[in-house]
Amino acid sequence: MDVQNQINRLASLKTDLFHKDFLLTWEKSDDDIRGIMETANILKAMRAENISPRIFESGLAISNFRDNSTRTRFSFASAANLLGLAVQDLDEEKSQIAHGETVRETANMISFLSDFIGIRDDIFLGEGNKYMREVGAALDEGFAEGVLPERPGVINLQCDMDHPTQSLADLMHLEQQFGSLENLKGKKIVMSWAYSPSYGKPLSVPQGVIALMSRFGMNIELAYPEGYGLIPEIVDIARNNAAKSGGSFKISHSMEESMQDADIVYPKSWAPFHIMQQRTELLQKADKEGLKALEKTCLANNAKHKDWEYNAEKMQRTKNQDALYLHCLPADISSVSCKEGEVDANTFERYRLRTYLEAGFKPYVIAAMMFTYKFRNPAETLKALLERNKKRVGI
Amino acid sequence: MDVQNQINRLASLKTDLFHKDFLLTWEKSDDDIRGIMETANILKAMRAENISPRIFESGLAISNFRDNSTRTRFSFASAANLLGLAVQDLDEEKSQIAHGETVRETANMISFLSDFIGIRDDIFLGEGNKYMREVGAALDEGFAEGVLPERPGVINLQCDMDHPTQSLADLMHLEQQFGSLENLKGKKIVMSWAYSPSYGKPLSVPQGVIALMSRFGMNIELAYPEGYGLIPEIVDIARNNAAKSGGSFKISHSMEESMQDADIVYPKSWAPFHIMQQRTELLQKADKEGLKALEKTCLANNAKHKDWEYNAEKMQRTKNQDALYLHCLPADISSVSCKEGEVDANTFERYRLRTYLEAGFKPYVIAAMMFTYKFRNPAETLKALLERNKKRVGI
Amino acid sequence: MDVQNQINRLASLKTDLFHKDFLLTWEKSDDDIRGIMETANILKAMRAENISPRIFESGLAISNFRDNSTRTRFSFASAANLLGLAVQDLDEEKSQIAHGETVRETANMISFLSDFIGIRDDIFLGEGNKYMREVGAALDEGFAEGVLPERPGVINLQCDMDHPTQSLADLMHLEQQFGSLENLKGKKIVMSWAYSPSYGKPLSVPQGVIALMSRFGMNIELAYPEGYGLIPEIVDIARNNAAKSGGSFKISHSMEESMQDADIVYPKSWAPFHIMQQRTELLQKADKEGLKALEKTCLANNAKHKDWEYNAEKMQRTKNQDALYLHCLPADISSVSCKEGEVDANTFERYRLRTYLEAGFKPYVIAAMMFTYKFRNPAETLKALLERNKKRVGI
Repeated sequence: MDVQNQINRLASLKTDLFHKDFLLTWEKSDDDIRGIMETANILKAMRAENISPRIFESGLAISNFRDNSTRTRFSFASAANLLGLAVQDLDEEKSQIAHGETVRETANMISFLSDFIGIRDDIFLGEGNKYMREVGAALDEGFAEGVLPERPGVINLQCDMDHPTQSLADLMHLEQQFGSLENLKGKKIVMSWAYSPSYGKPLSVPQGVIALMSRFGMNIELAYPEGYGLIPEIVDIARNNAAKSGGSFKISHSMEESMQDADIVYPKSWAPFHIMQQRTELLQKADKEGLKALEKTCLANNAKHKDWEYNAEKMQRTKNQDALYLHCLPADISSVSCKEGEVDANTFERYRLRTYLEAGFKPYVIAAMMFTYKFRNPAETLKALLERNKKRVGI
Repeated sequence: MDVQNQINRLASLKTDLFHKDFLLTWEKSDDDIRGIMETANILKAMRAENISPRIFESGLAISNFRDNSTRTRFSFASAANLLGLAVQDLDEEKSQIAHGETVRETANMISFLSDFIGIRDDIFLGEGNKYMREVGAALDEGFAEGVLPERPGVINLQCDMDHPTQSLADLMHLEQQFGSLENLKGKKIVMSWAYSPSYGKPLSVPQGVIALMSRFGMNIELAYPEGYGLIPEIVDIARNNAAKSGGSFKISHSMEESMQDADIVYPKSWAPFHIMQQRTELLQKADKEGLKALEKTCLANNAKHKDWEYNAEKMQRTKNQDALYLHCLPADISSVSCKEGEVDANTFERYRLRTYLEAGFKPYVIAAMMFTYKFRNPAETLKALLERNKKRVGI
Repeated sequence: MDVQNQINRLASLKTDLFHKDFLLTWEKSDDDIRGIMETANILKAMRAENISPRIFESGLAISNFRDNSTRTRFSFASAANLLGLAVQDLDEEKSQIAHGETVRETANMISFLSDFIGIRDDIFLGEGNKYMREVGAALDEGFAEGVLPERPGVINLQCDMDHPTQSLADLMHLEQQFGSLENLKGKKIVMSWAYSPSYGKPLSVPQGVIALMSRFGMNIELAYPEGYGLIPEIVDIARNNAAKSGGSFKISHSMEESMQDADIVYPKSWAPFHIMQQRTELLQKADKEGLKALEKTCLANNAKHKDWEYNAEKMQRTKNQDALYLHCLPADISSVSCKEGEVDANTFERYRLRTYLEAGFKPYVIAAMMFTYKFRNPAETLKALLERNKKRVGI
């Protein structure tokens, strides 16, 4: 049986995921990454066969979204629910956090009977990931001091640096589309900036993508207009990963040329790193005038690059005129969701359903992060669940 | 045992509810309608006897309320919870839908591990039911293309045309109060407009009531002041149903006269069809001035019909001076919830607890819609649940 | 086994908690109070040993927060979830309650398949507890008249008079810190007003603390600046309790002197009783100008008492210079959460983790209230759960 084979593959990995938060893919070993992917695939296969992997009789999974979200919110809720946890939102408008409570205290107050805290915090550069670590440290203390009966796991649902549940879903999609991770070797993937009529889009997706995809021997090309760079340290990680994995890493400044012979393309808008830095300073100072001025300048800059739209002309340059198109969704689709955007309507439509398949891995990635955090030997536990063979629906 | 008899009756019906959305009662056969009612009664009886009909180990029921709601929200949550599903709200203020995402995409993004989507969308005439079908079509595509492991069911929790969970709860209440559906034959039911100090109340309740109640051989009288008509096509459905079922259908313009010898009365305010059309146009144009002017005109029109209050005087005309009073709640009660309203305080008080009984069927109607959508042979599955005999509370 | 002993102790108590709302500790017998505490400790121990006390297959616990809350919200959600209930918020902004629905109707509408309603309503003096009783009476009627299959329990999550889940968590903390309730005899506890830069803080915490702690033979000292008194009837309850239990009760007006030889201190701000009365009148009249003027006067009055800060100097006077510091959190910590506040940073830090332990009892107190409401013989049911020995996590 296929699931049994997957479980055996998972058992052969040396993972270090037990009781470790998932905050950045680049803190994780290759076996960790594969461990998450195998576990996610197994959970997905079990559910497809109506076998419930429910492993919690009770427990809370807390979602703390400091930014709007539909798909990540639902992915987190779906993952928690699949394993038997109830979601409890920590809504900062409703809660007393807004009244100056410290992170340390709140982290403990919400965790007495909680198993996971999923956090999305991508607004302030230099803050989101740091905040997650502060929460983690508070939980460490609470557990060590007997305040908490168990130490809840922290899951990064998008921060200023990385978006691991997204990039891992993207990677699982590539694995499925190309048949295996091994088949990705030598493939060319272009992570390209694209024009959008909005401003201030987070850097976490392109950063997460280049830092993760560079681990599998692919040829990474990061394309953006001059001045639209990412956090330099993360670009270095991607460059080093590529070198180690037998791939390559290149930065270029023409969307059109970057697309040449690409196997995979990921055209997506983001705000330049140095702009996000200025924006963070202004936000922290609550400088409304400054923010308005910055937005105006940025939108004017963006508008110089409306030709950074992915469309038929650019697709023509790709391998077999049919590079696999990736997007974290929602895309800014020209003449659909905006006048001029990241991708033209026909091109998007051609790959639309495949972007849905891509997104469909995310709930299982999150469930796998939860599962491997909680069980020292996830392969063994999954085997036991398979043998229990409890139906998800029906009796 | 009574539940066993109900299950046998359910088994004898030829229903076509499996994997079919519940969007309008008039798209459903008589056996479908009875199938929902029998299933709802069985689930209600099982719970009353502390037998859990929980049939999902995990799964999400998504609620998408595009209008305020307390009772329908709780009914949906109760139904989902009874069967083992967790509710996840799709809150458009929180979600990215407000940012121009397409219905097609969102429907798939929220459905990877979801079993049902309950939608309430009754604000725009011509839009609510259409939106539900768009969601349904997107789910069809997602399932056909392998994006979704199962095709979630869509449940109409109130639209511009119908309010099936309400009208079915009303009907179950009538069945219980009169002893059987058969006993409803020849009974006179008056669906009457009533005065309210508010404007823009949806048409779905009166439309849903006349379209459903006309299927059981009752004499329907639809009473409203000149100019307060419903959607003509739905009135035709009611008229045709009445003719087919051996009942009658009549429109009149005097609340007082309509009440003569009524067995059942449903006095409730609504906005005239043509006003709702104008309002929809103005809302779509975001014409605030126009909306204000329309509201002013409407309230002035309403105010000419303050005598359309259901009260002792009108009740005197009904059968045995004691027609069964129905309302979907909350009612506009004169000198209680407003100065002048749909019903006077004494009359409402006389039937108050029975309106609660009426409302109490709604959670089970929704649970029955979920149950019959999910199981090809609901009678068999209910029998298995009865035999499993798991306690809802206790061990 | 320790849990078995606790169950035996619980079995020996004569409690009257079955199908009784928990609204005020002073309506409960000593055995009731101990019954809640024993049950809470047993549930806490079971969970710590990964034994699930889940006793509901389905059911809703409704939370109705008429004021902001993080910790009580999460405590309620945790308790419900531990026992197998799903939380459904009754959010008055979302619901139709705002539209003039009566308490009576709404209480029934949300309760068709609900097991508990937790209410926090502490804004209006004279209103919060009254509202809870109105809800209770409506549920009584609904159950008696066959509207509700079961009578949901009402749990006071903080009102204008009492905050029983807080004071019971405080008491459980004292029991653990001092080894037993018996050891509390003769101990001095100071419930002291403390300075805060905010105004209008509820009276329920100090009132709940003095009314409960006075039952265990402690010497209670209630300290506040002249004019900052509590509801006189509740002060009388504390005074009488103290006399009956062999303790003492004293009111004083110097924070410094009150601390002399204290074993336990609870420095916390509140608004004076007579101010809360005026505020309630102004709120009911929606008199914005009056409210502004009152706030101004109050803050000016508060500012005269900035020396009512608990700090090293005051701690020096306490027993062994180390009285146990209690707080319901969040505390107003000088130079941390505000410029000048209830407690200085060093003193708070010294007891910080113990305030977390204190808070950690609250979810189990709420779960115990639910458990004892639902089972006539909670000891027997807990024994059965222990024997069932179902894992909370794992298979």
